[in-house]
Amino acid sequence: MLIATPLSMTFDAPLQLQSGASIHGYSLSYETYGTLNADKSNAVLVCHALNASHHVAGVYAGQDKSEGWWDNMIGPGKPVNTDKLFVIGVNNLGSCFGSTGPMHTHPDSGKVYGADFPVVTVEDWVNAQARLLDALGIQTLAAVLGGSLGGMQALSWTLQYPDRMRHAVVVASAPNLTAENIAFNEVARRAIVTDPDFHGGHFYEHGVIPKRGLRIARMIGHITYLSDDVMNEKFGRELKEAVLDSASGYRYSTQEVEFQIESYLRYQGDKFAEYFDANTYLLITRALDYFDPAKPFGGDLSKALARATCKFLLVSFTTDWRFSPKRSREVVKALLDNQRDVSYAEIDAPHGHDAFLLDDQRYMGVMRSYFASMARPAEVAA
Amino acid sequence: MLIATPLSMTFDAPLQLQSGASIHGYSLSYETYGTLNADKSNAVLVCHALNASHHVAGVYAGQDKSEGWWDNMIGPGKPVNTDKLFVIGVNNLGSCFGSTGPMHTHPDSGKVYGADFPVVTVEDWVNAQARLLDALGIQTLAAVLGGSLGGMQALSWTLQYPDRMRHAVVVASAPNLTAENIAFNEVARRAIVTDPDFHGGHFYEHGVIPKRGLRIARMIGHITYLSDDVMNEKFGRELKEAVLDSASGYRYSTQEVEFQIESYLRYQGDKFAEYFDANTYLLITRALDYFDPAKPFGGDLSKALARATCKFLLVSFTTDWRFSPKRSREVVKALLDNQRDVSYAEIDAPHGHDAFLLDDQRYMGVMRSYFASMARPAEVAA
Repeated sequence: MLIATPLSMTFDAPLQLQSGASIHGYSLSYETYGTLNADKSNAVLVCHALNASHHVAGVYAGQDKSEGWWDNMIGPGKPVNTDKLFVIGVNNLGSCFGSTGPMHTHPDSGKVYGADFPVVTVEDWVNAQARLLDALGIQTLAAVLGGSLGGMQALSWTLQYPDRMRHAVVVASAPNLTAENIAFNEVARRAIVTDPDFHGGHFYEHGVIPKRGLRIARMIGHITYLSDDVMNEKFGRELKEAVLDSASGYRYSTQEVEFQIESYLRYQGDKFAEYFDANTYLLITRALDYFDPAKPFGGDLSKALARATCKFLLVSFTTDWRFSPKRSREVVKALLDNQRDVSYAEIDAPHGHDAFLLDDQRYMGVMRSYFASMARPAEVAA
Repeated sequence: MLIATPLSMTFDAPLQLQSGASIHGYSLSYETYGTLNADKSNAVLVCHALNASHHVAGVYAGQDKSEGWWDNMIGPGKPVNTDKLFVIGVNNLGSCFGSTGPMHTHPDSGKVYGADFPVVTVEDWVNAQARLLDALGIQTLAAVLGGSLGGMQALSWTLQYPDRMRHAVVVASAPNLTAENIAFNEVARRAIVTDPDFHGGHFYEHGVIPKRGLRIARMIGHITYLSDDVMNEKFGRELKEAVLDSASGYRYSTQEVEFQIESYLRYQGDKFAEYFDANTYLLITRALDYFDPAKPFGGDLSKALARATCKFLLVSFTTDWRFSPKRSREVVKALLDNQRDVSYAEIDAPHGHDAFLLDDQRYMGVMRSYFASMARPAEVAA
């Protein structure tokens, strides 16, 4: 069994952010799995999405059910094989899972950042990750890998540090958010910000948490992670507790739980509100909204991706309506316009956006063979 | 110009509801357009969806911009031609637009219903509509017409009163909600119910309105009414106000409006929260959740629709992901299984669920020809 150990590194020098602000005296939490080889050529960076962290694989010693969020994908003998590869998971700035975020104190003022934590972007995260690699003495990555928002970071890596990586693996992602994607983020943010317990983002000092808003945000998110089909299959119109002496079986209540899907969503919302930070939610969804590498090129993604020189694997899932295959195909086309080496797998899976975290034989097979070829000595040495 | 006059009728006798409760001393608001012919054979009942009322067509005298919600469809010379047909719009029980609802007082106690307003179903609404027709002396309808939730009422009419109608026109509707549909309703309801100003549904006596929750509910609803495509076309990633001296143009704020789509949604939410009743929102979304005519038949829609004897027109729109064409096709198939006379038009329109309220040449053409054939004397007399 792979035992994971959380590590932390502090950076004193200011990191210039895209917004014009900067941050200094911050820490990044990270974990590593496998062994860095002698020429430091087998490192794979894993970037995380909204509700995840540096704890990508393995378990914590003595802690049951502490598997990393991509433990099915990464580990000894797994598709991303840590017997061959040195995998690094890093928690992003602004998170609530270890790295410096809104819940932490500003190193100068000693006050909790709260809503004053600087707005961070995908590009900022990538810059912070590059600094971590500097500190670890890793100049060139075998690959950057990410799903969803993590895939955006992998894509941004190819543009910000094209010489520091050989492969980008971009799963269930998109070159930017659509208006509908932004709309869902905005509703979630409004639910949080208009919760009376939010206090303009300075709720910590009031000893409260905007749980109502966080619950709504999570419920909305969860709907968009699943496909209509898988929701129908898992829950359909099943009732939580049918009323046996009624012909319809319904309880006829507008506020009580009636259908299983309601019970499931409420549970997901309640759980999330217990551990996720409201300011982090705002920051991460905003980073999603802002990401748009084609923007400085008048929306021309082919021009934007001309800087990328590494090899690419893109993967999408047919029932993912949050980041649909169409969006991955846009990236593939833009890379082909630049005559880049790109592989693309469109996996016919029923699970919607969540599919990127689940076991699917074809998906796992594609990932396994791509990373296996990457780990071959001939190429690693190239 | 068609001048509309709102009417009201009060019903003293109790109406038995599906939940087991009953309601008495209630009023229904309605409007009529055109002239009922001598043999009372040209009446068309129009059923409304979530955010609509009895004011279906025409304008109110002296009131600018007071067009009824389906004024493009219904009126003199329009697809549902009031020169030939006698059209009745009725506001449903539990609404906040005129008919008795949660904001009104219980006739016995004199207290505002609030959260104690009985849970009403599509079937209850249809029974109340049938009583109104009794009072108007109309035994048999030429047609029942409705879109979305209104289409569910039209469908339910064919099962509850198969002998009282010759045609059902069911637009952008479904034989029941999917788990995803229920999920969106539930998030909206949770946003309302957990708003501290909701006070368990008795907010009237506290002199407040749960506007935060209503805003969120409306924003969620609005996203599901539009297609991804039309949102991208109308708003895309346009910024509300680009920062001209920034390379990105972004303001870098998590709480301010940044994108046009955010501005649009906030506006829609604010507007809705000014006029829509929170308890009505709960009631109407619950009626949507509950509707499932196949339920007493073990989910077999073909068996359920065997009772329906009228002729049918079903219309769906390709980009409607709330009530997708697939759902209309389920109804068509079930009717064909019963060898019913059914016409079906699947309109290739970009506007999502909202398409049923918009002008589209093919859609309007289909409706016009269907209602024209219905109004022909030969058939009216048949």
